[in-house]
Amino acid sequence: MSQPLRLGIAGLGTVGAGVVQIIRRQAALLEARTGRAVVISAVSARSRDKDRGVNLSSYDWESDPVALAKREDVDVFVELMGGEDGPAKAATEAALALGKDVVTANKAMLAMHGQALAVAAEARGCVIKYEAAVAGGIPVVKVLGEGLAGNEITRVMGVMNGTCNYILTHMEATGQGYNALFAEAEKLGYLEADPNLDVGGIDAGHKLAILSSLAFGTQVNFEGIELEGIQRVTLEDIRAAADMGYKIKLLGVAQMTGRGLEQRMQPCLVPDTSPLGQLQGGTNMIVLEGDAVGQIVLRGAGAGAGPTASAVLSDICDIARGHRGPVFGQPAATLDTPIAALSKRPAAYYLRMTLKDKPGALAKVAAVLGEAGVSIDRMRQYGHENDQAPVLIVTHKTTRVDIGHALSAMKTTSVVAGDPVALRIEEV
Amino acid sequence: MSQPLRLGIAGLGTVGAGVVQIIRRQAALLEARTGRAVVISAVSARSRDKDRGVNLSSYDWESDPVALAKREDVDVFVELMGGEDGPAKAATEAALALGKDVVTANKAMLAMHGQALAVAAEARGCVIKYEAAVAGGIPVVKVLGEGLAGNEITRVMGVMNGTCNYILTHMEATGQGYNALFAEAEKLGYLEADPNLDVGGIDAGHKLAILSSLAFGTQVNFEGIELEGIQRVTLEDIRAAADMGYKIKLLGVAQMTGRGLEQRMQPCLVPDTSPLGQLQGGTNMIVLEGDAVGQIVLRGAGAGAGPTASAVLSDICDIARGHRGPVFGQPAATLDTPIAALSKRPAAYYLRMTLKDKPGALAKVAAVLGEAGVSIDRMRQYGHENDQAPVLIVTHKTTRVDIGHALSAMKTTSVVAGDPVALRIEEV
Repeated sequence: MSQPLRLGIAGLGTVGAGVVQIIRRQAALLEARTGRAVVISAVSARSRDKDRGVNLSSYDWESDPVALAKREDVDVFVELMGGEDGPAKAATEAALALGKDVVTANKAMLAMHGQALAVAAEARGCVIKYEAAVAGGIPVVKVLGEGLAGNEITRVMGVMNGTCNYILTHMEATGQGYNALFAEAEKLGYLEADPNLDVGGIDAGHKLAILSSLAFGTQVNFEGIELEGIQRVTLEDIRAAADMGYKIKLLGVAQMTGRGLEQRMQPCLVPDTSPLGQLQGGTNMIVLEGDAVGQIVLRGAGAGAGPTASAVLSDICDIARGHRGPVFGQPAATLDTPIAALSKRPAAYYLRMTLKDKPGALAKVAAVLGEAGVSIDRMRQYGHENDQAPVLIVTHKTTRVDIGHALSAMKTTSVVAGDPVALRIEEV
Repeated sequence: MSQPLRLGIAGLGTVGAGVVQIIRRQAALLEARTGRAVVISAVSARSRDKDRGVNLSSYDWESDPVALAKREDVDVFVELMGGEDGPAKAATEAALALGKDVVTANKAMLAMHGQALAVAAEARGCVIKYEAAVAGGIPVVKVLGEGLAGNEITRVMGVMNGTCNYILTHMEATGQGYNALFAEAEKLGYLEADPNLDVGGIDAGHKLAILSSLAFGTQVNFEGIELEGIQRVTLEDIRAAADMGYKIKLLGVAQMTGRGLEQRMQPCLVPDTSPLGQLQGGTNMIVLEGDAVGQIVLRGAGAGAGPTASAVLSDICDIARGHRGPVFGQPAATLDTPIAALSKRPAAYYLRMTLKDKPGALAKVAAVLGEAGVSIDRMRQYGHENDQAPVLIVTHKTTRVDIGHALSAMKTTSVVAGDPVALRIEEV
């Protein structure tokens, strides 16, 4: 029988406590599946006294996660503290420096320091595994890095932030506006301490940056993402989109182009009959496209103690089984320096604007679009209220640049009130 | 640099040719991802002269797959011939006897001989990998065996035969009956040489048996499946189900119960708004449920050269990376002997029968159901034609046994014409 695999777990929030619980409850199953006992040597968290609903008395306690990472009786450092810098990064680096493997759920740390950590890990022959960092319980890191290893990946898409999808789908279901649903999500504890991480698309962007690296063999490049949150999506947009057969999602899209890596995380329209369009509430969905496999769709819980702990355990079992490999699918030294490419691929766009009640207003808008080279597929004008009329337009395929020109030109006319909204319609 | 991984590929149908194509086209990518060159030493197929659209001139040719398996320059025997016995099994056994790893897409062989082959492989320290045997391009074997390794699996479900789903969804879409769509599927080349493998549920049953073993730690037990094909599903059933908010799917379900392992592959009703209900055409979908992760849904192409070759390459890459492990997730010697348990868990049922135009006919049917302990949730009677009226009933939850009693009793009444139909409504 092999030696037990000895863990040091730093961070005992809901996920950390969930991991401890599974290791206690499923000890026999884990040993049968990996051929080794999986044991916890020591744990670390901010407060020792807090009741976490799990018996920690048989594990040593370390108040300092760096000290935990350095313990001789720790083979694998399990980092579940979070935060892109600070103790999480310091302890991870300490573990790697001593040749210990790391399992982490920390998307921010990997999105910002993934390349440096991968280099450090591979220099010592260590692995860093991070299934829990992307899309919670959905084993997308494994599917992308191993299950589709024979594919040239052509596109990665996904709804990767459950809170945003909860807000957007509940706006439509309840008819309440963004602010009301934001407040509800806050009350339900769905939002990060800094809510902008969620609604600003940053958390989802971290996940997209990690998947991009794995998919396209490039260094993680969070800064290269065209990032836009859901704060400006209105109930009117959601209803108008629904009227025309679409749903609005905070959608991540990554694609390698001849000009570089295109990464977008922004509200998009998708057909309401597509799997992405039908995704309700806090569930996550990842769509992976490869030259051989075609399209693979993965759906599951993107957060929560159980699903995230499930992902952490997947990584731990891989290490126990001796399944090792480079952090981002190929050696960090061979990953390309990413060239961030702004989206130039044509797409249809959804435009919403408010027209003032002036003669020829609609003709003026149509003329502006025509001059910018944007042609109209469908248009709806609703009735005037207070001398203003909402107008919705779905364009034929055009570029972001041409749309930008059209929007700028519209603001200089005297017939459009306020800022027009433009959302990309993604072909899924 | 590590030694190249040398393959012998037996079977050059669409999948085999697809595998050769990917290995030729993506040589650099595969080497970057696995750290080793992946090369083909020799190939084997029935006819040497056939044009397969891929250049085979640089590989040795073996007319005998057993000889291919035994070659010194073959590290991994890739079995893509199919057939549960015969050359596929003989060559696989020959490879294992010499300590060579095996990659196979052969669901029939694994469903019938999986345990013996696993024992043989593990005795020699070999692996048998078979991602392509279940659900084509969907990496469900990897997700179940590795991605959810921290979970006690509570249920496995899925639409695993694209041809059956094609027939069922096109019956509804076109209003044609089963026979017409069967003929169309045949014309399109969607059916196996023995069509009963598809429409009789056998092919899908093979896949379910393999997933069950992996999920529940039991020996593969194809014979333990309650198996029923789609041949008796009528257009009337599909329309009536749609009327009541359901779709009919050939659905595989495996669950461990206190009485043993329940495995069913049969036409079932699922809500039309569920991911399974929305699955159109030849696409496959697998739903995995675990105690920690909740529900994970995987969707993708279940057949075809590209998707299946993608799965074969995933296995080859795993072996190239040194990712090894027991064939069915834990050592074959520790797999439980399965106890096949017929389904006793209560479910709602859909019943369709034809009533003769006699006074009190409906009352008689209701009485028979009541006597069998089956209570009615919803009932619809349609108008009489030729003195016969179709009646649809959705029951409250009841057992298969009680439904059986009710159906038997109905046939002894003088008011029901022909055989009543009962389909389980699966909670998904």
